[in-house]
Amino acid sequence: LGTFQSSACGSTPNFIIMLMDDMGWGDLGVFGEPSKETPNLDNMAAEGMLLTDFYSANPLCSPSRAALLTGRLPIRNGFYTTNAHARNGYTPQEIVGGIADEEILFPELLQKAGYRNKIIGKWHLGHRPQFHPLKHGFDEWFGAPNCHFGPYDNKQRPNIPVYNGMDMVGRYYEDFQIHRETGESNLTQIFTQQAVDFIERQAQSQKPFFLYWAIDATHGPVYASKPFLGTSRRGLYGDAVKELDSAVGQILDALKTHKVDDNTLVVFSSDNGGAMVSKDKGGSNGPFLCGKQTTFEGGMREPTIAWWPKHIKPRQVSYQLGSLMDMFPTLLSLADITLPRDRAIDGIDLSDTLLNGKNIDRPIFYYRGNEMMAVRLGMYKAHYWTWTNGLQELRQGIDFCRGENVINVTTHDQRNHTSQPLLFHVGRDLGERYPISPDSIEYHSAMKKISKVVRDHKTNLTPGQPQLNWCDTGVMNWKPIGCEKLGRCLPAPSSNPYKCVWMH
Amino acid sequence: LGTFQSSACGSTPNFIIMLMDDMGWGDLGVFGEPSKETPNLDNMAAEGMLLTDFYSANPLCSPSRAALLTGRLPIRNGFYTTNAHARNGYTPQEIVGGIADEEILFPELLQKAGYRNKIIGKWHLGHRPQFHPLKHGFDEWFGAPNCHFGPYDNKQRPNIPVYNGMDMVGRYYEDFQIHRETGESNLTQIFTQQAVDFIERQAQSQKPFFLYWAIDATHGPVYASKPFLGTSRRGLYGDAVKELDSAVGQILDALKTHKVDDNTLVVFSSDNGGAMVSKDKGGSNGPFLCGKQTTFEGGMREPTIAWWPKHIKPRQVSYQLGSLMDMFPTLLSLADITLPRDRAIDGIDLSDTLLNGKNIDRPIFYYRGNEMMAVRLGMYKAHYWTWTNGLQELRQGIDFCRGENVINVTTHDQRNHTSQPLLFHVGRDLGERYPISPDSIEYHSAMKKISKVVRDHKTNLTPGQPQLNWCDTGVMNWKPIGCEKLGRCLPAPSSNPYKCVWMH
Ligand SMILES: [Ca+2]
Ligand SMILES: [Ca+2]
Repeated sequence: LGTFQSSACGSTPNFIIMLMDDMGWGDLGVFGEPSKETPNLDNMAAEGMLLTDFYSANPLCSPSRAALLTGRLPIRNGFYTTNAHARNGYTPQEIVGGIADEEILFPELLQKAGYRNKIIGKWHLGHRPQFHPLKHGFDEWFGAPNCHFGPYDNKQRPNIPVYNGMDMVGRYYEDFQIHRETGESNLTQIFTQQAVDFIERQAQSQKPFFLYWAIDATHGPVYASKPFLGTSRRGLYGDAVKELDSAVGQILDALKTHKVDDNTLVVFSSDNGGAMVSKDKGGSNGPFLCGKQTTFEGGMREPTIAWWPKHIKPRQVSYQLGSLMDMFPTLLSLADITLPRDRAIDGIDLSDTLLNGKNIDRPIFYYRGNEMMAVRLGMYKAHYWTWTNGLQELRQGIDFCRGENVINVTTHDQRNHTSQPLLFHVGRDLGERYPISPDSIEYHSAMKKISKVVRDHKTNLTPGQPQLNWCDTGVMNWKPIGCEKLGRCLPAPSSNPYKCVWMH
Repeated sequence: LGTFQSSACGSTPNFIIMLMDDMGWGDLGVFGEPSKETPNLDNMAAEGMLLTDFYSANPLCSPSRAALLTGRLPIRNGFYTTNAHARNGYTPQEIVGGIADEEILFPELLQKAGYRNKIIGKWHLGHRPQFHPLKHGFDEWFGAPNCHFGPYDNKQRPNIPVYNGMDMVGRYYEDFQIHRETGESNLTQIFTQQAVDFIERQAQSQKPFFLYWAIDATHGPVYASKPFLGTSRRGLYGDAVKELDSAVGQILDALKTHKVDDNTLVVFSSDNGGAMVSKDKGGSNGPFLCGKQTTFEGGMREPTIAWWPKHIKPRQVSYQLGSLMDMFPTLLSLADITLPRDRAIDGIDLSDTLLNGKNIDRPIFYYRGNEMMAVRLGMYKAHYWTWTNGLQELRQGIDFCRGENVINVTTHDQRNHTSQPLLFHVGRDLGERYPISPDSIEYHSAMKKISKVVRDHKTNLTPGQPQLNWCDTGVMNWKPIGCEKLGRCLPAPSSNPYKCVWMH
């Protein structure tokens, strides 16, 4: 009765986080994408709250996702590397590390409080058995531990397994097709059906749920299903966005159909900025500088919408400086669950922002690997370090800021500005093009506040054990859990650990 | 009775064109400006049609405005120079030329059909007596012939006169203040009151009207009135935008109050892109490349909204390739006035787009001075010439593409690509960063169509007499009409014509 009543009365809300992959701030109509091909998302914003100043904790998949689920910066939760300075690391197949048992993921706490949790799509917090999402707070999983790179030959590198629950059920390119030439794949349709089915089941069981819908159609190689291929003004990437938009509409409809819409907070966002290395096959970061992999606005400002009928008032725009890490304290607070007190949580409780439009003063830290590159406080952003990618990569055609060149800002060396940080006003200078003169009163006034925030942050920072230092071809997805049942285990090479090479 | 009835029944609609000055595509909330500080304009779009792919005819004030009123490209209507190749010219105080008597401005034709026409704000089609707007189709004028540059000393250069009707009523900085340090000015309030009063008068007289509201608060030096100063997240420029947005709300309210809203088509747009030379004190061109003065998207794609209750259906987005030149045939068509047949009109009748959502296939030509720099057809844009500004200006700190650097595209020389135009897909590549390979089928297919369009265009092009070749300090605003009555005439130097120097 308790569970039934609380669920029905709204005292124990359901949660859905829709996390896009490499989608840029500028990819939604409501955020200014000129082709305006996202009617469902635009409508979701109209029915809820648009968050214009919302950030991921990192410009790359794995650390961003680890930070979302732990509420902690990657430097604390271990999703970083010390192999080299200020390098982005993630969880490729060779990675030895993953999410540590000591880390608390908010689904674990929801689970203890009676929630049923499902992850659909990309996990990316480690693929070895001990890192399996069902061992870290989730009850169900349909998706993959790594990016859908490939196809591999299953000899040098295995194709990425797809799991349903504890067990693998097949592999990308073998059992779950992504056509490399046409980009055709029905994966978004599968992931959407999984979400709709889960919502239906949970509504019937009247148990609260958390759905982490972490789908990856906008991550290269971009894909869309047949009905969407060729329908966008934006090419294949736009087709993928249109399909995701349609899927969002289907999921919100499912909530309405099963009458749990008034009791479900849905947050839509992306794990990092659009990938400029994908050129015209990637996302748009709108007016912002650079993209994925960088700590400029294009790398970490995310298209974010919060939707909760009868709780979040429609047609709101919030300038709240928000972070994906805020999901941890916010969802726990809304579920009336006490936060762990034995560790630093970087996220803040945004329930007052969502429910009452409050604006809470707080900094945003922009990290790249083990280095705090920049800080935002109010409208000011100070860069302590700048870097795009090295010249060697640039010569190979890799450019995280293609077409952009802001002198002393989009640097191709790791430039240390800590003695005199580069300061921008990100309200009047969206593109981080015009550093404020260090001789100005404005500079001194802003930097005084920022310096204190940085000092406090660094004083109280205890870095976690880095998880992204070691690689080993022996740990790749040769023998995923369940491969025996399917007769699909692959011969694994012997273990040969080496320090991962993180280029940027 | 005829006029009354037609006005009341909607067969003779009123027209308002709200033309902003140097406002960028990305400056409105509905077009993706992150601070979302334009609730009235966003609402106007929600009640009407958003035009995402709408262009000015030129990336600079005077030619853009001349093209708007004549429906003809500057190369035809004379608002260009042949002093040097592909140079932007306008009407500074020294300009000898202006709008030729031979040119037909659509207000002239509206006037003959019984309309009363008013221009409020910047004229910019020449300031010598023969170019006065009341001699070119307008019945009323409150505003100035040139930009509000200054203050001048009235010796080397006179301050710009402000006219009310035929006569000057004062000068900027002397009688109409713009505070150079604070940016405070009540000009937008004056221009708005002028509009509201005109609407009230016309509604009472029950005569159809055309209001050309050509205000300039977003042109440097940017200004806002006291109630708006310091209220924006975007600095002074944002304050100006907020005041304009508020003014738009007041004007639409006046239409409603006087019950002429259902009978008034209102079009909001801007004369050219945001000025990147103004750095963080200018507008935002959203995801587009470069800005004012250039033929990249940032220079000529304009934030455009059409609003006409009960005629234009709400919540529409149109991808129609539109041009400010289309106002000429569109407004005349809606007013049931026959187009002149003795000349080429570059604008097309968009009434079917506005009223019925039709999309009409047509090219957009991007000119700089006497050169066709680029063409857009469908989603493809071909650059025949590229140029930003010369290295000499660059060394002086002038940069029309600051922070952007697309190799072979944002060239600092006038680069001739006519033998193999640079081709972009502006749907999937908003920033004109990724030229399509000339070896591809896509390139050949698109260029085949574009080449034909260009050939036809050039074959049928008869350039007009260039109006922007000659300058003379003797023609400046020394003795504006009405100065005698006020005792405010200034001593003029003797005439000394010279070829104007157009740097870019
Ligand atoms: Ca990602
Ligand atoms: Ca202008």
